[in-house]
Amino acid sequence: MEKVALGIDIGGTNTDLALVDQSGNFLAEDRLPTVNFSEPEVFVAALMEKAKLLHNRISDPVKVIGIGIGAPMGNINKGTIEYPADLPWKGIIPLADLIREHTDLPVLVTNDANAAAVGEMIYGAAKGMKNFVVITLGTGVGSGIVIDGNLVYGQDGFAGEVGHTIVRPGRTNRECGCGRVGCLETYVSATGLVRTLIKIMADSIEPSELRNVSFNSMTSLQIAEAAEKGDVLAKRAFEHTGEILGLKLADLVAHTNPEAIFLFGGLTLAKNLIMEPTLRAFEENLLFIYKGKVKLLPSGLNSKNSAVLGASALAWDLFKKERK
Amino acid sequence: MEKVALGIDIGGTNTDLALVDQSGNFLAEDRLPTVNFSEPEVFVAALMEKAKLLHNRISDPVKVIGIGIGAPMGNINKGTIEYPADLPWKGIIPLADLIREHTDLPVLVTNDANAAAVGEMIYGAAKGMKNFVVITLGTGVGSGIVIDGNLVYGQDGFAGEVGHTIVRPGRTNRECGCGRVGCLETYVSATGLVRTLIKIMADSIEPSELRNVSFNSMTSLQIAEAAEKGDVLAKRAFEHTGEILGLKLADLVAHTNPEAIFLFGGLTLAKNLIMEPTLRAFEENLLFIYKGKVKLLPSGLNSKNSAVLGASALAWDLFKKERK
Repeated sequence: MEKVALGIDIGGTNTDLALVDQSGNFLAEDRLPTVNFSEPEVFVAALMEKAKLLHNRISDPVKVIGIGIGAPMGNINKGTIEYPADLPWKGIIPLADLIREHTDLPVLVTNDANAAAVGEMIYGAAKGMKNFVVITLGTGVGSGIVIDGNLVYGQDGFAGEVGHTIVRPGRTNRECGCGRVGCLETYVSATGLVRTLIKIMADSIEPSELRNVSFNSMTSLQIAEAAEKGDVLAKRAFEHTGEILGLKLADLVAHTNPEAIFLFGGLTLAKNLIMEPTLRAFEENLLFIYKGKVKLLPSGLNSKNSAVLGASALAWDLFKKERK
Repeated sequence: MEKVALGIDIGGTNTDLALVDQSGNFLAEDRLPTVNFSEPEVFVAALMEKAKLLHNRISDPVKVIGIGIGAPMGNINKGTIEYPADLPWKGIIPLADLIREHTDLPVLVTNDANAAAVGEMIYGAAKGMKNFVVITLGTGVGSGIVIDGNLVYGQDGFAGEVGHTIVRPGRTNRECGCGRVGCLETYVSATGLVRTLIKIMADSIEPSELRNVSFNSMTSLQIAEAAEKGDVLAKRAFEHTGEILGLKLADLVAHTNPEAIFLFGGLTLAKNLIMEPTLRAFEENLLFIYKGKVKLLPSGLNSKNSAVLGASALAWDLFKKERK
């Protein structure tokens, strides 16, 4: 009987789920509006019902080997979601326990960046690699660190929050949603790029079509399109973003000395606009012992549904390790 | 027959060696002047001769289970020392291979901070801990990162160079011996403390006995003694050093989420002068999910001979893992 993993990506608006085979093919997929559920118990019941329907939609019989879940503030050690800012639920949600009331399958919960890292190892460009880091550049900035073939979860299950390392110390720098100032996330996320563009706009007198766009309606995609058309401010915003990201990634290497760093998520759709200045700053700032040894690459995961793919990889990774 | 490990600490001036039992007791120890040997082959021959004499000095028969070596730029993967700035030899020295010409014992080579981390786990305050970091604050700044009970060596054997992460970006900040600017080491090493004191001296007009001491002759111990006596500039230098170190350690937590961070080395002899401001900045800058969960502690290793102790721990760690 063919084996599949159930991958679930819980987002603030929607929750995506899919049955995924070992090669990363989606045999069936569906979606649930997270935002409609004020009670996590009701949400989980609806989610498991959807999962059962998914299973029934596949004509050939399949065996589900486990459930992998990516969720903001997902904690692998406890199977919980803890104080998520973007979900309709408050406090600590015992997600894995709630799911185990419906099934005996193994359940793994972690954040989306950790799921992306395992996805990169199982299906993506990190196949066969033992030491690498995935950086997710979306609304926020996350990271998943793999050492000796294992994702680093840390003592409390919260390793890899490099989006919240401080790249600009001092109280006058950018405020972060975490309550502190100067976090990497405030500079190199999609939102960080918008903040940088707005700052450049304030400092410069050069014309730009983006001067007609409000802060709230401006997107990283819009800035990328303007840069492609030669907009000076937009190009400069990508330059600044890449400079800060490249410097921080060079610092990251001095922690765990990975073989490669992969960039994943919305901002990487801007391709060379972000990759080129990042690579330049990365190589320029690497300590001499690492120079020329650490690859900086775009993610090998197809960005469509990659969050669900990453989540399903958690279950495959566990399955493979248990059979060793 | 009692088992012992041979621990060797290679420094720019001297090389210390000792036979150490599993509890960390030194059964015999000796010293060799590194600086007298211009050829690594001759050095290794003399070192192994000294080791044989050590063995003979112990009255009861003992069995040596392995050789652990701490050395600047020591690379565990290859058993080499690579481009050491402070040793009399140039280029890549195949240390483990040279030693294997004299013995069949397992030989492990790594840098002093990694050796200190394994020492902390085997003999010190990290006994039983699975996830922790040791930061060495000496002439330079090193680090050893332990995850799930294993020291992180990284893809090229050079993990844990957090002394060379950049805490003050921008070309006008402090030059580092590594050729870059703004490295942690330029602020929080013993030398960094002296640089900070001199900088404060330039900016302030307050009196200080240290105004009679030259940059080259000033030591961190002298600054500690002045601070103890109430010297305002000396106290301020420790405050600034602790602020930068505490902030960086908070960032470090966001990488691997350790249970504890241990401070080790010369600067920690200043005890609360350095621990208090570091702890304050650490707690103040931790991301909310880590607050109150990560301990910041002085090393549990006796600082006398702790480098040799750490080196011997490498051999014990390997021995224990091989018997599992």
